[in-house]
Amino acid sequence: MHIAVTGAAGFLGQRLIRQLLDQGELRGQAITRLTLLDQVEAEVPGGSRVEVVSQARDITAAGAFDDMLDARPDVIYHLAAVVSSAAEADLDLGLAVNLDATRALLEGCRQRDLGNTRLIMASSVAAYGGELPETLDDMTALHPQNSYGTQKAMCELLINDYSRRGLVDGLVLRLPTIVIRPGRPNAAASSFASSIMREPLNGEEAICPVPTDLELFVMSPGKVVEALVHGAEVDGEAVGPFRAFMLPGITVSVAEMIDALREVAGSQAVERIRHEPDTKIQAIVGSWPTRFHTRRADVLGFERDRDFRDILQAFQEERH
Amino acid sequence: MHIAVTGAAGFLGQRLIRQLLDQGELRGQAITRLTLLDQVEAEVPGGSRVEVVSQARDITAAGAFDDMLDARPDVIYHLAAVVSSAAEADLDLGLAVNLDATRALLEGCRQRDLGNTRLIMASSVAAYGGELPETLDDMTALHPQNSYGTQKAMCELLINDYSRRGLVDGLVLRLPTIVIRPGRPNAAASSFASSIMREPLNGEEAICPVPTDLELFVMSPGKVVEALVHGAEVDGEAVGPFRAFMLPGITVSVAEMIDALREVAGSQAVERIRHEPDTKIQAIVGSWPTRFHTRRADVLGFERDRDFRDILQAFQEERH
Ligand SMILES: NC(=O)c1ccc[n+]([C@@H]2O[C@H](COP(=O)([O-])OP(=O)(O)OC[C@H]3O[C@@H](n4cnc5c(N)ncnc54)[C@H](O)[C@@H]3O)[C@@H](O)[C@H]2O)c1
Ligand SMILES: NC(=O)c1ccc[n+]([C@@H]2O[C@H](COP(=O)([O-])OP(=O)(O)OC[C@H]3O[C@@H](n4cnc5c(N)ncnc54)[C@H](O)[C@@H]3O)[C@@H](O)[C@H]2O)c1
Repeated sequence: MHIAVTGAAGFLGQRLIRQLLDQGELRGQAITRLTLLDQVEAEVPGGSRVEVVSQARDITAAGAFDDMLDARPDVIYHLAAVVSSAAEADLDLGLAVNLDATRALLEGCRQRDLGNTRLIMASSVAAYGGELPETLDDMTALHPQNSYGTQKAMCELLINDYSRRGLVDGLVLRLPTIVIRPGRPNAAASSFASSIMREPLNGEEAICPVPTDLELFVMSPGKVVEALVHGAEVDGEAVGPFRAFMLPGITVSVAEMIDALREVAGSQAVERIRHEPDTKIQAIVGSWPTRFHTRRADVLGFERDRDFRDILQAFQEERH
Repeated sequence: MHIAVTGAAGFLGQRLIRQLLDQGELRGQAITRLTLLDQVEAEVPGGSRVEVVSQARDITAAGAFDDMLDARPDVIYHLAAVVSSAAEADLDLGLAVNLDATRALLEGCRQRDLGNTRLIMASSVAAYGGELPETLDDMTALHPQNSYGTQKAMCELLINDYSRRGLVDGLVLRLPTIVIRPGRPNAAASSFASSIMREPLNGEEAICPVPTDLELFVMSPGKVVEALVHGAEVDGEAVGPFRAFMLPGITVSVAEMIDALREVAGSQAVERIRHEPDTKIQAIVGSWPTRFHTRRADVLGFERDRDFRDILQAFQEERH
């Protein structure tokens, strides 16, 4: 079992690689080789017997995928991407990395007859937008209101078509907002959602820029990685007529998150949250859909977090 | 008012050009120039005072749109495309003409600051597919089951994003099945829908390969051209958060079409239809959606045919 990972130096890439090396097998087959691709050299966890090849490459360069594909991977995780704010700030960069490189990857598979290679890409809740219904489902149209979501939605269509034609065996998983991320606050509009839990647990102050009745559709990093692994094991035929769908997040309000924090870490932790409304962040985050019927993912066996308390406890355990 | 038309030698391009020259104005402004682009030299109707420039170019060639865009058209009709069967037979050709050339056109507009230029593209009912609801609406997801529909859906997303960013003022109209087409039967799966009306009216035999209770979602060529014209006049802001939507066709069964033929041309015409079931055609045509709530188009003032009898009568009048 040879697995290739693009964006291997990133947040999800690194967690996925550790998980794959931990379990040592995929689809009941021993993992013999990992090919890692990222523009920055991906860290390789030590102590494994798996052959790990790490390539520092810009995926927008001509032939960037050649070596990786020549080695005929059984599974490809395509996680390299420029994220939302960067794709909005630079249309050309977003198109080159998020769209053109994905197309080059598909073409590379086609040229090498990798019709049986499972290609798993991460799409995003940002592909939804516009005048959305209360509850979304697998048949809700993608009307993205940002370039990142547009590029992800275009890749979904292309991967679906290449899969339909038997040129690759693709699967695109739309990820909910991932909480709780480790690290520091960043420029993402959703940054506060991790921050208001993570910083108080570290004895630091955090700012909550949104009203506490605001809801989010979230998934823990652990469950996302489980979904990526499960994505390699799902039967392509069983996916049905479209190879992209939303993963099962859970809907949680900021108030519920804060209640969970109180339960787990006491009110002194909760008191470290300062409420400073930011209408800009409210407008962005408030426009994201928060309620989904994820029937396709459920039928295929993808799993959601049980509740937000679980997410918080998993984060606590990881810190120790 | 300078109007550019790609695919100007095609079925819709030719009808649109005649309509534009007939009315002489668009958005209340006199049409002063028409730029026609097609890989085959487009016919130019005589007797008009409008300056008509006809360019024979392959739109996949580098710089193919340069002259046209340098002249800063106010409205661009982008109708050049390879159709469904050709795009399915040749993935590279479909991607090059239907996707890459559209992107090059958008980039050309961006480079020349044509943010106020109305770009109108024709998408298709073929962009829908998969497990569809009884009645579709503006929020039904596009899960195309063919490469043509995939490429059209990708262009919709790209045009929407370029419009959202103010780089062009785009509008994409999804066309129903167009009946009654003049000319001869062709390889299209929907060819019979025109043929079973047109040939009997010409005293010729036609073959009906589908059961008469099969329904179609149709629009007359006249109403499609009206919609293209109206598309130039619609306020971009009023379109809402997504720049593509379905045009208002009407749902009609083959039996209703045959009844209309009987009314208009008598039962001797109807007797010229031979019923020879073709399971292949049934499977393709039977998978097309036939019922739509076209709220967006209705609100914006796009109009449907009154009934199939009207479509038939308009065709009759044109023949004479
Ligand atoms: N984390 C989330 O909340 C979230 C949500 C939805 C979707 N996603 C998607 O999941 C995937 C992984 O997300 P993440 O959180 O790990 O992101 P990340 O930014 O941590 O990782 C992305 C990686 O891609 C690499 N990369 C970017 N441009 C590259 C290029 N030109 N060549 C080579 N490598 C390049 C970066 O170096 C980075 O290591 C992405 O596709 C992202 O769009 C993430
Ligand atoms: N007629 C329909 O039923 C229908 C339905 C849905 C959508 N559409 C869309 O409407 C548009 C016009 O349709 P039509 O019926 O007039 O089609 P058509 O095939 O009659 O016209 C298309 C024109 O595009 C030109 N063309 C193709 N490739 C080209 C290239 N590489 N460079 C330059 N020109 C090229 C062809 O020469 C042709 O004149 C197309 O975009 C089509 O996809 C049509």
